[in-house]
Amino acid sequence: MDSLPDLAAVEAMDEADPLRAFRSRFALPAGVIYLDGNSLGAASHEVFAEVRQAAMEEWGNGLIRSWNSAGWFHLPLELGDRVGRLIGAAEGQTVVTDSTSINIYKTLLAALAMRPGRNVIVAEGDSFPTDIYMAEGVLSTRPGITLRLEGRDAGTIEELIDDSVAVVLVNHVNYKSGELRDMAALTKRIQAAGALVIWDLCHSAGALPVDLDGADADFAVGCTYKYLNGGPGAPAFIYAAKRHHASIVQPLSGWWSHARPFAFEQSFDGDAGIKRFLCGTQPILSLRALKGALSIWDEVDMEALRRKSIALTDLFIRLVETKCGQYGVELETTRDSEKRGSQVSFIHSNAYEVMQALIERGVIGDFRAPSTLRFGFTPLYVSYHDVWRAVTVLEEILSSGSWKDARFAVRAAVT
Amino acid sequence: MDSLPDLAAVEAMDEADPLRAFRSRFALPAGVIYLDGNSLGAASHEVFAEVRQAAMEEWGNGLIRSWNSAGWFHLPLELGDRVGRLIGAAEGQTVVTDSTSINIYKTLLAALAMRPGRNVIVAEGDSFPTDIYMAEGVLSTRPGITLRLEGRDAGTIEELIDDSVAVVLVNHVNYKSGELRDMAALTKRIQAAGALVIWDLCHSAGALPVDLDGADADFAVGCTYKYLNGGPGAPAFIYAAKRHHASIVQPLSGWWSHARPFAFEQSFDGDAGIKRFLCGTQPILSLRALKGALSIWDEVDMEALRRKSIALTDLFIRLVETKCGQYGVELETTRDSEKRGSQVSFIHSNAYEVMQALIERGVIGDFRAPSTLRFGFTPLYVSYHDVWRAVTVLEEILSSGSWKDARFAVRAAVT
Repeated sequence: MDSLPDLAAVEAMDEADPLRAFRSRFALPAGVIYLDGNSLGAASHEVFAEVRQAAMEEWGNGLIRSWNSAGWFHLPLELGDRVGRLIGAAEGQTVVTDSTSINIYKTLLAALAMRPGRNVIVAEGDSFPTDIYMAEGVLSTRPGITLRLEGRDAGTIEELIDDSVAVVLVNHVNYKSGELRDMAALTKRIQAAGALVIWDLCHSAGALPVDLDGADADFAVGCTYKYLNGGPGAPAFIYAAKRHHASIVQPLSGWWSHARPFAFEQSFDGDAGIKRFLCGTQPILSLRALKGALSIWDEVDMEALRRKSIALTDLFIRLVETKCGQYGVELETTRDSEKRGSQVSFIHSNAYEVMQALIERGVIGDFRAPSTLRFGFTPLYVSYHDVWRAVTVLEEILSSGSWKDARFAVRAAVT
Repeated sequence: MDSLPDLAAVEAMDEADPLRAFRSRFALPAGVIYLDGNSLGAASHEVFAEVRQAAMEEWGNGLIRSWNSAGWFHLPLELGDRVGRLIGAAEGQTVVTDSTSINIYKTLLAALAMRPGRNVIVAEGDSFPTDIYMAEGVLSTRPGITLRLEGRDAGTIEELIDDSVAVVLVNHVNYKSGELRDMAALTKRIQAAGALVIWDLCHSAGALPVDLDGADADFAVGCTYKYLNGGPGAPAFIYAAKRHHASIVQPLSGWWSHARPFAFEQSFDGDAGIKRFLCGTQPILSLRALKGALSIWDEVDMEALRRKSIALTDLFIRLVETKCGQYGVELETTRDSEKRGSQVSFIHSNAYEVMQALIERGVIGDFRAPSTLRFGFTPLYVSYHDVWRAVTVLEEILSSGSWKDARFAVRAAVT
């Protein structure tokens, strides 16, 4: 292994970074090293301009006319295709709409309807919980369907799959550990058993190259407010492979999913394409913020992004282990860069207090119960120098024990 | 009946209008008379300030910290209570979340679960179609449940109710005709038959005083982008009477509806209150636009609003019938002001072309197939002089036949 980089070497990495120009597009506050773009991505100047245009010009002056003239009604499909480019989806297979939770519900029910006679949903016990909760919601209205959870029931995802399984809902990157699944291999394994797969891309869309079409995936869902930088609570997306479009039936059949929404017909007739996964009217200002964010993504080379992501996370792991290893931090994420997303988690027995101390010093990551320090590395606006500086601050906090101050133990109502 | 007001009399009505100061709060474009606030309400300066604050300060500078420090996570309940004041709901019974369509689905399933053994949903054939589509969506996953529609099946809503009916989904104000139902009487009738009622308030919230608690209503849903001026596609609301909270079960059980959302538990345990109707993460920028809009509503006397609404619509009807009656316009809305919302519809055999000609002249209403000219009167920013001027323009268009120009017959892709 190469010798540990010093500050000069780290600065040279920034000099050579082909993505470094993107940082100026973001409105980052002074004095902050932001390692939480995997929870809420940073705002960009493009976003502010889009929101101003949508609110003041289009809504303020255009009023109702802007549904036509500003293309508001077409945003779910337009933005869907732009997200599609980042997740390996050819046109017409992705829409931006509703929340990830709701989109999980739609895709689970669509998948169950396509596999009559099979009565099992498989998911992950260590998933972000809303995936499990939505599966339980499906169970509550579908007597006879059962849920198998990796990590609760015996066996891995692969071992839980048999010929009673209709659909597997699985995360591409785990929200806590950062573990990256092999999409192509697992999709193949699931489909070989006759089941369908729904990939949850919340922690991989915009974090690394995703190739849904290439993996022959069935469905995917994900959010746009993490690596895609669409803004707090920005609407989520759904992908469905074109081969399934004619078979999609889902019960959230609002007027935006009708084949002729403006004919105001008395009976439902679903759109023949991906719009079948829409439901009701969408929040335009939030969609327009996302449009601004995606205008940056249109310029990004995803392979270069992945190379920088791996370099950032590798550097962080090496520096933390070398400089802070003696203070009780232990790597939770895999050391194998091929098997992790764009985040790194460390375990520490007082992770909550340590994270509060970091945030007070301007290094923003997050805490996940019971003892995870989670750091996200967003290659568009995080520099190698940020990594260096973050580890320096972490080392100071751990070596001085300053995290033991009582004020860091006070928990906010919402974390 | 009084003699028909002349221009001087109309201007005197504006002088005496206790709500006239509100108009300056809105960012209305010059040269436009906006009679479509029942489709998309106008933008206000308060909204622009809120959106700027939320985007540039809270997201841009606060980043992830603003979920706590700016109270983002509490917006559904905070804004719900502020909408609640306008619809007669005491605190803790209303949340702002998702779309009206999705909220219909949640409340229908919650109501069905509360009436086991009853298997009929009653709704209206002439409802805005998404209400019917969502009921059909419920049917698609609930074999054995059937749908009765007033206007398709024989009988009025009242006649369709019997002891097999679990829930009645009914509009307070019809989106097309403007017909206003008697909420207290119909609620009583429905409950006497052992059923539950869901009021769709899309065209009455912010249009007139609504008294859900006073009517002893069970559930209500509605949108916030019409009379409430929350912005295009702003999130919708749900009301549930407190007495039902312990019984609410609905399958869109995302993490925001969990009793302890930040404990990240592996199994769902629903919130004991109105938050049980939340689901996933909400679009914060759109919610903050609504917050700005509601800051104006906090100052509005709903009784004064209703008086002006009736005066505006009465004046419009009288002027149109007197000045334009000879050109084939026929009143669709009831003449009885007690039985209509804040909108007036006229039938004309070439309604589409007439509306396009009006819009070109800066009088914005809307067209509803096949032959309705629909005009909304939003008392916060429509003046009596606007009414006068709109009718003058309509008279000019009809008397000259200028609407017959071929360009007015070209239909936009989305109307």
